[in-house]
Amino acid sequence: MPELRRDPIIGRWVIIATERAKRPNDFKIIGGEPDSNEKCPFCEGNEALTPPEILVHRKPNTKPNTPGWDARIIPSISGFLNIKGELDRHGKGMYDLMNGIGTHDIVVMTPKHMCNVHQISEEQIGKGVGLLIKRIEQLKEDNRLKYALVFGNHGKAAGGGSLGHLHLQLIATPVTPKRVKEELEGAKRYYEYRDRCVICDMIKQELKERKRVICEIDGLIAITPFCSRFPFEVWIMPTEHSCDFDKAKPNTAKNLGKIYKHIFTKLSKLLGDFPFNVILHTAPFRRRRKKSYWETIEDDYHWHIEIMPRLTQVAGFEWGSGFYINPMPPEDACKALKEIKV
Amino acid sequence: MPELRRDPIIGRWVIIATERAKRPNDFKIIGGEPDSNEKCPFCEGNEALTPPEILVHRKPNTKPNTPGWDARIIPSISGFLNIKGELDRHGKGMYDLMNGIGTHDIVVMTPKHMCNVHQISEEQIGKGVGLLIKRIEQLKEDNRLKYALVFGNHGKAAGGGSLGHLHLQLIATPVTPKRVKEELEGAKRYYEYRDRCVICDMIKQELKERKRVICEIDGLIAITPFCSRFPFEVWIMPTEHSCDFDKAKPNTAKNLGKIYKHIFTKLSKLLGDFPFNVILHTAPFRRRRKKSYWETIEDDYHWHIEIMPRLTQVAGFEWGSGFYINPMPPEDACKALKEIKV
Repeated sequence: MPELRRDPIIGRWVIIATERAKRPNDFKIIGGEPDSNEKCPFCEGNEALTPPEILVHRKPNTKPNTPGWDARIIPSISGFLNIKGELDRHGKGMYDLMNGIGTHDIVVMTPKHMCNVHQISEEQIGKGVGLLIKRIEQLKEDNRLKYALVFGNHGKAAGGGSLGHLHLQLIATPVTPKRVKEELEGAKRYYEYRDRCVICDMIKQELKERKRVICEIDGLIAITPFCSRFPFEVWIMPTEHSCDFDKAKPNTAKNLGKIYKHIFTKLSKLLGDFPFNVILHTAPFRRRRKKSYWETIEDDYHWHIEIMPRLTQVAGFEWGSGFYINPMPPEDACKALKEIKV
Repeated sequence: MPELRRDPIIGRWVIIATERAKRPNDFKIIGGEPDSNEKCPFCEGNEALTPPEILVHRKPNTKPNTPGWDARIIPSISGFLNIKGELDRHGKGMYDLMNGIGTHDIVVMTPKHMCNVHQISEEQIGKGVGLLIKRIEQLKEDNRLKYALVFGNHGKAAGGGSLGHLHLQLIATPVTPKRVKEELEGAKRYYEYRDRCVICDMIKQELKERKRVICEIDGLIAITPFCSRFPFEVWIMPTEHSCDFDKAKPNTAKNLGKIYKHIFTKLSKLLGDFPFNVILHTAPFRRRRKKSYWETIEDDYHWHIEIMPRLTQVAGFEWGSGFYINPMPPEDACKALKEIKV
């Protein structure tokens, strides 16, 4: 069982994957090329190469774990966390730790071997997103879990694996991640001071200034944020206030498919097959019985997607300071993206 | 003049380097190989290729900006910040920003073209560190500046430049960086609760458990921290409480040379020419007149150096959560490092 350890200074959690422990020599070479002769386990027809599906969007009268699906969620075979067992929080002198309870899922976004978002249809993306929403609803029922982080990596520079087949990942953790807590706390402080949601205010100002708005499609907006850390960083969020991604409007999955494809088509036309990370930030799971400060955040948190092209290096200065250096003003990035015809 | 912008949600600062703004096409290819025929501007004899030195450790009777030096600090030619002008903090609707006042220096650690820490002598490292301490003392006199972050990058995977010649960097900023503030706040909370410094406590527990202590040399200790984010992460710090790096004991520069070389020799024997980032965390500059919460931190902050080998990828999960996944338990890393004979 992996171990979750909490840094005593700033409260950052680390997953020490003891079962995957490597010997020192294993670290000498990083990466390596994918074996192109190997069968892709995410392709339709190769269902036997993956663990059984957890959730699936499939055609009528097809059997589980056989062809006939549009999107499927399967457990990751290199999962960092383990869903079996009781949560065991304990101390070791001054240090805090717990066992690595959690889940790690893969959302296969297409049955065909497509590697880029712009290659699949809006409807296809919508189906994958629909499954994600259902999966988050499921995970919320597990009292040991506090958060589900949805993310995607593409390209070597962004930590994307050698398996090109388009997929997203979902990791559910027994603690609310530090980065999410920071946003919750920041948004809460803003709300207490102004009685308005910080992201609603951001959208209002962006719509007024019109320098960083790429597009608005069916209740969703895409901007290059004022404080972009990376060149061509893009955030997508609902224009109207919405705290929990899984409680979003019924059409959200479908509409997200539209704007997501639109943005990635623009980015790909501009930057080619660029490396990127994408993350979804939504509110943590809330429980009726456990009172905690985010029981009241319905009004002060606003879900959003952060797309981070990894064209610049993150090095010592960024690690040590939390500052980012961005050589591309978001206003210029927005202008360039708007000019691309889709 | 570059612009400093503050994220309205979590207060993260971004340097938008408007003067270095690139066109979209400039981002299509990352990196590129160094031109090995070019003269190294950091080598002795090539002083004319760099801006004039700010501080230098040189032999008697040699002239500034000529050969005869052991270590020198020069301004970075690709500096992200600009030291000229008045600090101008202002708002733009809900956004906070300021002009990019600050400095970016290069500390050339050796006159010869050495690329790795273990290739130069302890004394040599000590001389470079001595200059750094002097430079921080200088920068503290500038009322516009709040912090000096010392860092180093080595290898492509760690954002190290194509110029191999061993050097450290120092960036002074007009705000205390978020990552440092987090540590200050965490250390303060710990101190308020326990009336003890969190890092002093950490050292005490490590010396008792003896599972993560690599070595102790002349008042400095090197450990693989309990919460290591990266395989073979190493922290170096003074065993006795010390808040400000530049006010450390007179022999600190010399002793740091010893332990720094010792650790890097071990790491290099184990991992080869591995990519890494290294950062120094010390207390922010304090002023007599401006009262702020870190005026009292003498007791609750403890300077330290974080060495982060970059053998694993940081991807979407880490970006989105602030969690880290480390496949090498620090206890195993420590054991492997202790077994290496130096």
